[in-house]
Amino acid sequence: MGALHDGHLSLIREAARANNATVVSIFINPAQFSEGEDFDRYPRDYESDIRQLSGLLYGSVSALFMPRVDDIYPDGYRTYVEVRGLSDKLCGQFRPGHFTGVATVVLKLFNTVMPDRAYFGLKDYQQCAVIKKMAADLNLDMEIVTCPTVRQKDGLAMSSRNAYLSEAERLDSAQIYKALKDAEHAVKDGSLEIRAIAARLRQSLCQIAAITEIQYASAYDPETLDEITHSTGVILIAAAVKIGSTRLIDNILVEL
Amino acid sequence: MGALHDGHLSLIREAARANNATVVSIFINPAQFSEGEDFDRYPRDYESDIRQLSGLLYGSVSALFMPRVDDIYPDGYRTYVEVRGLSDKLCGQFRPGHFTGVATVVLKLFNTVMPDRAYFGLKDYQQCAVIKKMAADLNLDMEIVTCPTVRQKDGLAMSSRNAYLSEAERLDSAQIYKALKDAEHAVKDGSLEIRAIAARLRQSLCQIAAITEIQYASAYDPETLDEITHSTGVILIAAAVKIGSTRLIDNILVEL
Repeated sequence: MGALHDGHLSLIREAARANNATVVSIFINPAQFSEGEDFDRYPRDYESDIRQLSGLLYGSVSALFMPRVDDIYPDGYRTYVEVRGLSDKLCGQFRPGHFTGVATVVLKLFNTVMPDRAYFGLKDYQQCAVIKKMAADLNLDMEIVTCPTVRQKDGLAMSSRNAYLSEAERLDSAQIYKALKDAEHAVKDGSLEIRAIAARLRQSLCQIAAITEIQYASAYDPETLDEITHSTGVILIAAAVKIGSTRLIDNILVEL
Repeated sequence: MGALHDGHLSLIREAARANNATVVSIFINPAQFSEGEDFDRYPRDYESDIRQLSGLLYGSVSALFMPRVDDIYPDGYRTYVEVRGLSDKLCGQFRPGHFTGVATVVLKLFNTVMPDRAYFGLKDYQQCAVIKKMAADLNLDMEIVTCPTVRQKDGLAMSSRNAYLSEAERLDSAQIYKALKDAEHAVKDGSLEIRAIAARLRQSLCQIAAITEIQYASAYDPETLDEITHSTGVILIAAAVKIGSTRLIDNILVEL
């Protein structure tokens, strides 16, 4: 969706490393914004995007695909892809239709570009899960590659929406990742049971002055995205909060 | 869905004529049967199907793809394709979820076989419309070819479900096509207005003793499938009826 940051660039570098040609898409997809969300004010800086892409190692980007809304959704557009079950959990509870919009546009981009591999960042963990499931379910002949979240020095996950934050909010927002890591350490050192992660996270997040709403914060099954109370494998610790009017998400995968 | 008849074979012949290789799929798709429909008793005669395919001109069929249900819908399957607007009209009103099941399995078959062209019979007009719209909307790099309805000598559209009919029902069912043609002729000779087609069709269909229910019968826009009262182009005259417990559909495209 543009407003490129180091997270996006890390995906492009990884794609360029592993493939003969790399296509970058920039498209702010109206179908994945719910009623009342920030579609109109979502950061758009195409000149900066193009400058950043041009600044990458020569040959990293073979093509930039930057369609207009009516290229993707012409008059009379009707077809939507729904990944049932995965789409209505976590962020889906708060963003009705969001993951249907994501799955739909991603399938259209795949069918247009026909890549061998597509790269997504794990900051949007649920998006990765939905797209992987869609690709498997619809027999897409390609690989979905997920890449680690890239963070600012203080731990805040890179996101185009960080641009919405005031200076004070920006400082506070680094505490989200610290809350996730605190839960991880406590689980790993045996002082916290999985069933108690949600309470511990809420306690940490409640102490962050700038946070105005905690949408979810707990431990989840990385496959089904169901909240879990115990596990012997990998758990997803994830949270979505509002800082002022800005919605931020973050997560970590923890191997037990 | 197998139980092959001359309608299916006409599609295969057309595909074989125009392409280097032709793949036939036979899969009775549970996702396109609504609750309480005839999935369990849908005609299955794989030996006859294979015999008929073998009897075609040498080289007509390059491969037969006959997956099991859990090849197509493995445990945990979640992804469905919805062509909104087109799917809830005509047959969709009476078969909730049917066209979502059709669009989903057809996209999966396309992604598995990756054909240049796919062939569908116009007896299932709405299915053709839904699939064409899906293919366009999802940027599929292939062509959807629709072929004329093949009929029995007395006019009844070929359908695997005709096997459900008793001898008396089978005789009566030929009158459905006659009712559609009667409306066509009356519109063409100027004695019937488009707005009066629905009444004329109902009148004709009501006189068919074996018909127990008229689900729809009228003139429709061939693109939007909306019922129409006037037109200067092509109109779709279509009907769905029940003969005993057997649901039959038929349609004709009329150029004005």
